[in-house]
Amino acid sequence: MKRTTSLGILCLVILTVLVFGHVLEATNADKRAADGPLSKETETCIECHRIFSPGIVGDWRKSRHAQVTPKVGLSKPALERRVSAEQIPEKLSAVVVGCYECHSLNAGSHTDHFDHFDMKINVVVSPNDCKVCHAKEADEYGASKKAHALENLDKNPVYSLLVDSITSLKAVKGGKMVNLGSSENAKKETCYACHGTEVKMKGMKKISTDLGDIEVPDLTNLPNHGVGRLNPDGSRGACSACHARHSFSIEVARKPYTCSQCHLEPDIPAYNVYMESKHGNIFASKYQQYRFDAVPWVAGRDFTVPTCAVCHNSLVVDENGQIVRTRNHDFGSSLWVRIFGLIYSHPQPKDGRTYMIRNKDGLPLPTAFAGQLASEFLIDRKEQEKRRLAMEKTCRACHSRSWTEGHFQKFAQTLVETDTMVGAATAFLDEAWKRRLADRTNPFDERLEHLWLRQWLFFGNSVRYGSAMSGPDYAAFKNGWWELSSNLEHMKSIVHRPKR
Amino acid sequence: MKRTTSLGILCLVILTVLVFGHVLEATNADKRAADGPLSKETETCIECHRIFSPGIVGDWRKSRHAQVTPKVGLSKPALERRVSAEQIPEKLSAVVVGCYECHSLNAGSHTDHFDHFDMKINVVVSPNDCKVCHAKEADEYGASKKAHALENLDKNPVYSLLVDSITSLKAVKGGKMVNLGSSENAKKETCYACHGTEVKMKGMKKISTDLGDIEVPDLTNLPNHGVGRLNPDGSRGACSACHARHSFSIEVARKPYTCSQCHLEPDIPAYNVYMESKHGNIFASKYQQYRFDAVPWVAGRDFTVPTCAVCHNSLVVDENGQIVRTRNHDFGSSLWVRIFGLIYSHPQPKDGRTYMIRNKDGLPLPTAFAGQLASEFLIDRKEQEKRRLAMEKTCRACHSRSWTEGHFQKFAQTLVETDTMVGAATAFLDEAWKRRLADRTNPFDERLEHLWLRQWLFFGNSVRYGSAMSGPDYAAFKNGWWELSSNLEHMKSIVHRPKR
Amino acid sequence: MKRTTSLGILCLVILTVLVFGHVLEATNADKRAADGPLSKETETCIECHRIFSPGIVGDWRKSRHAQVTPKVGLSKPALERRVSAEQIPEKLSAVVVGCYECHSLNAGSHTDHFDHFDMKINVVVSPNDCKVCHAKEADEYGASKKAHALENLDKNPVYSLLVDSITSLKAVKGGKMVNLGSSENAKKETCYACHGTEVKMKGMKKISTDLGDIEVPDLTNLPNHGVGRLNPDGSRGACSACHARHSFSIEVARKPYTCSQCHLEPDIPAYNVYMESKHGNIFASKYQQYRFDAVPWVAGRDFTVPTCAVCHNSLVVDENGQIVRTRNHDFGSSLWVRIFGLIYSHPQPKDGRTYMIRNKDGLPLPTAFAGQLASEFLIDRKEQEKRRLAMEKTCRACHSRSWTEGHFQKFAQTLVETDTMVGAATAFLDEAWKRRLADRTNPFDERLEHLWLRQWLFFGNSVRYGSAMSGPDYAAFKNGWWELSSNLEHMKSIVHRPKR
Repeated sequence: MKRTTSLGILCLVILTVLVFGHVLEATNADKRAADGPLSKETETCIECHRIFSPGIVGDWRKSRHAQVTPKVGLSKPALERRVSAEQIPEKLSAVVVGCYECHSLNAGSHTDHFDHFDMKINVVVSPNDCKVCHAKEADEYGASKKAHALENLDKNPVYSLLVDSITSLKAVKGGKMVNLGSSENAKKETCYACHGTEVKMKGMKKISTDLGDIEVPDLTNLPNHGVGRLNPDGSRGACSACHARHSFSIEVARKPYTCSQCHLEPDIPAYNVYMESKHGNIFASKYQQYRFDAVPWVAGRDFTVPTCAVCHNSLVVDENGQIVRTRNHDFGSSLWVRIFGLIYSHPQPKDGRTYMIRNKDGLPLPTAFAGQLASEFLIDRKEQEKRRLAMEKTCRACHSRSWTEGHFQKFAQTLVETDTMVGAATAFLDEAWKRRLADRTNPFDERLEHLWLRQWLFFGNSVRYGSAMSGPDYAAFKNGWWELSSNLEHMKSIVHRPKR
Repeated sequence: MKRTTSLGILCLVILTVLVFGHVLEATNADKRAADGPLSKETETCIECHRIFSPGIVGDWRKSRHAQVTPKVGLSKPALERRVSAEQIPEKLSAVVVGCYECHSLNAGSHTDHFDHFDMKINVVVSPNDCKVCHAKEADEYGASKKAHALENLDKNPVYSLLVDSITSLKAVKGGKMVNLGSSENAKKETCYACHGTEVKMKGMKKISTDLGDIEVPDLTNLPNHGVGRLNPDGSRGACSACHARHSFSIEVARKPYTCSQCHLEPDIPAYNVYMESKHGNIFASKYQQYRFDAVPWVAGRDFTVPTCAVCHNSLVVDENGQIVRTRNHDFGSSLWVRIFGLIYSHPQPKDGRTYMIRNKDGLPLPTAFAGQLASEFLIDRKEQEKRRLAMEKTCRACHSRSWTEGHFQKFAQTLVETDTMVGAATAFLDEAWKRRLADRTNPFDERLEHLWLRQWLFFGNSVRYGSAMSGPDYAAFKNGWWELSSNLEHMKSIVHRPKR
Repeated sequence: MKRTTSLGILCLVILTVLVFGHVLEATNADKRAADGPLSKETETCIECHRIFSPGIVGDWRKSRHAQVTPKVGLSKPALERRVSAEQIPEKLSAVVVGCYECHSLNAGSHTDHFDHFDMKINVVVSPNDCKVCHAKEADEYGASKKAHALENLDKNPVYSLLVDSITSLKAVKGGKMVNLGSSENAKKETCYACHGTEVKMKGMKKISTDLGDIEVPDLTNLPNHGVGRLNPDGSRGACSACHARHSFSIEVARKPYTCSQCHLEPDIPAYNVYMESKHGNIFASKYQQYRFDAVPWVAGRDFTVPTCAVCHNSLVVDENGQIVRTRNHDFGSSLWVRIFGLIYSHPQPKDGRTYMIRNKDGLPLPTAFAGQLASEFLIDRKEQEKRRLAMEKTCRACHSRSWTEGHFQKFAQTLVETDTMVGAATAFLDEAWKRRLADRTNPFDERLEHLWLRQWLFFGNSVRYGSAMSGPDYAAFKNGWWELSSNLEHMKSIVHRPKR
């Protein structure tokens, strides 16, 4: 009997280990076990919407919001916290973050507030609502160029002219081209899809549903999840641009696919260059072995190559708990130079509202036509140096000091060289304007001007991104030096076209 | 002793749970454990082919065909059934679906039927063979534009002229370009690779193998797995175009990579737009957590964003078992508009055989040169409305009614606007023809005509796909409005080239 | 009691199975449990570097190098061996492959050897160092075109002129374009990023660290991991180009993302064509179910479609242990034809040093301007045939003999046809030179010459890769036949531009 007892106990011990292991595994694999209750209101929402929008409910159920109460979130050690507010209202704190918790906030400021089957809710959840728990992130974001992306187009007559030149309808009548002007629709489907639209309350409208006719707010310019969206509560931006839909996933935001929606070739080939780089190669190979939902995010353990988020906005630590870089939702704030040429590369603007810049030519552009910086509106050398050194520190988590410095020396020279190649194209255009081969009234609407635009917006940018993140094809044959040189020769062949 | 007994029993209970869990897990992870026997014939095939084509045997072994007998398939509840035939011959029904089961069907109609080491088999397995178990799918597919993709090129003189203009060999002799005509090879490697080739029996040929010389059918135009392939049994199409190779995987067919083989930029950027969209972003991030082999496919549980298959052909239900959309293998049948401009967007054709259309100009095209619809051959407004509402229902699984309606309003206006921009280019071309700057005999072979073709085939299409599936870069700088406007200006600069 | 004893024993048996299964699983999932000790020196390295470069240490820890001693590696059966050296020095053999083991080798030949906190180490680990364990691979690689990729540019005046023409800075002064020459920087960021730079010791330099100032070697032209890098020990190449960073992963090297870093559109669209092919489609869908670290690599079991490595360099066997293809790190050695046109397709060069070739025109190019092969420097028909048959054998692991032969017949004809289309463009250019419409001194710097270059480097290549690996879009609208024909017409429109 002793033997059987021992056997039994042995079994029990091993079983405990196994069962515990299983439970742990299950917890990791399926996080659906909530640690707190749903609010009564959210329960009511779900009761109907699991029938009328099952995808939304299903998406939310898999989210962290559906699992964890703000109270638990607040109780974590500083480095592990995902909520930055010091305090969260008791009513919100004790339940998981459900439909009603987000769609009912700050009712007073929401022009889209309405009565929906006896629930008082808002259609749009804005950064100002997310701020209740994520205060620091909302504030940082609010100061960024991204938050002002719509106004930075709309309030800048140069950019507005570019948007109009591209999107205006054209017709050909009697052999002549006629400009029919730009529709709101074409703008929304192109530039404003990323930059954001103005979502305004027009009034209530009646819609037919399976439960009969109901009244809902009639909002302008939706769907849109642009980064600088103007919301019906007056706030700017859409957190869902990156933390998409109802899973609000940190994993989705940290993977490069999110950034790729706006930052892609031909004008901003950040994603394309990344995927072609050594970083992107290894990411594509190994990302299934990485952890994208860890907070803090541990370099060398949770990932071995960076995604966009690692270098541009996440909190990253090392295995010893030392901070590699701090979290910041004003993504430009860790950059010392803006490689997106307008028309040349330049130090980052001081203020997210770039429409307030004035250059030497009197235009709201960070550089003048001949290259001078609008320095007063741009960060100074000291601030640039500080930011560059912080970036180098991030690189040095995986690269030697020599390697890192060598990289940024190459990058700095690339900026000088690409600006020279843009300057050459600009000189050709200027000559063409002087010789009346083109008309400078609108610099964006003639054949030669289109070639000029490609030079700075497509080819100069590609080489700079290629150099910044080591994707050599984008510096070479794919919109790179090959095109910089070939396009310039093309411009020359037009400006100097020989008579036959 | 009682304690040890209880311990033992406890262990047993827990073990049972664990073991059962393990078995379940193993079943999911490795489906190689067949539920039915192999036929004797298939056993014979495998005996040799595991040596002579180990990759094919390995691929098949991992397939559902190798695991499940049609009898078991037939026994499933209606929504879970993957076989649509009401009855399946007893001989096939009791064994798993192996080599011989497919390669021996309908011998009488197969001109590629032959004797292979005493087995009577066909080289090609055609949709008509798959139909024995998948009757409904084969019938639906047979009525589609895809099934007629080869004939829709070959029997349409306009498209044939385009194919020839692109693929014909050119030489330069004495400074003049000479058209040497188009080879069958160049056509097979380009247009017909997707559209399909005609696979005909030429006779038997001798080939050398490690077992000595053997005789096999000599078939024309293979390899090919184009969607409109003409098979040696007279049937149309290749199910393997999407359910690729010997795994016949529903998972592969449901992922966007399959569609991407033909539906990609610059002419049909459906895949590229999808990957740039919010849907594509989330898919790329989360697809490893989705279930792609579930039948029925549950929105919100098996996936949280759609792939191509969700909106265009799969059976989708919600967690309550309600049908979101029905399965249909005539993919065009759920579309109300054809955004692939020919040369303008237009309502979907009524019949899969588009070569039967006649427009106002007397040509087999759905729209006339000046834009009029060949309405008689296209679905009417009522049918369009019906199909659009069915699509909206799918969207509403995850989006509100307002969001959905807003989306399709934008889309409708985009069609009008892109058709206008194509019309402008067409007017320039027409003027150039009239002024003898180009020759209208072949509209596809001169510089200005090539710019015109880019306008409708590349740029118009890109904007429409970008709008349909919310990939703004393809509506903007990447072959979008930027190119629509820039290309038109380019055409103008040629038509109105100033004298110097 | 008997019952409880039996129960206990039953439990024990089942537990043993379960626990054993768990252990096995854990071993597969997490390979961190080393089978041998770290050297004292490596322990010292890690002590500091886990603080100063935690990402490198973390990456290495997950590598096979950190788990397995060379002794264990040497003890494997021949087909499973990853080390090809017959003998490995005892000192290296008994410890896992750590920092010091690699960074201290062959000190005598390393000009970058230095004293680093009392450790004598080299900065760069070169192929000659890797050769200590991976002798066969290093030798094969050393003979390849890749190993000579830098010299093949630098010592070939034609290619050097192309590099300079593309990357030289241009300015416009007084309306005239001025060539300011090509910077080392621009070359490093473009062509030499893939081809490799010359890494030379300049002397020691002082750098500031958190531990105070230290002296380290000052090396030229880093960062770089080009395939033909000249290292400070005089060796050629960088194994890390494919076995990237400190995980030295066979998995990363076998996935197509590694190859994609250099072999991508527009000039070498191998990756793009692969991803568009049926192979790429299925890879994208199923690769998570494949095993990429198995040696040997079993077709049909470890993978069901090939990646680049399967057909071009890996050892592949079938489930019966038969060799499908042998391993070879001279990747060109399994190819019979070079489809990368220079300017026409041609048999593979005999020697990796292509700068030694002389064609009929006296230039170091494999084909002459008018098409004649520099046959003396290229493999003969017999060798071509041998290599093609070896490739067909690989294909036949998954495809029938007819299918395989049909594929390569199409491919052969595509080569003839694309060369014809390149020849036509070349004839136009020749005529333009004769008529003084362009100047032949530099064939790479004028508008018409740029169109000519696109014809062979972008469009001819795209069609050939598209045909070789069955990605029809790259043979059709995406840089394929459409562009081959349209670009030729464009050249014609310039050469024959009518007077108005």
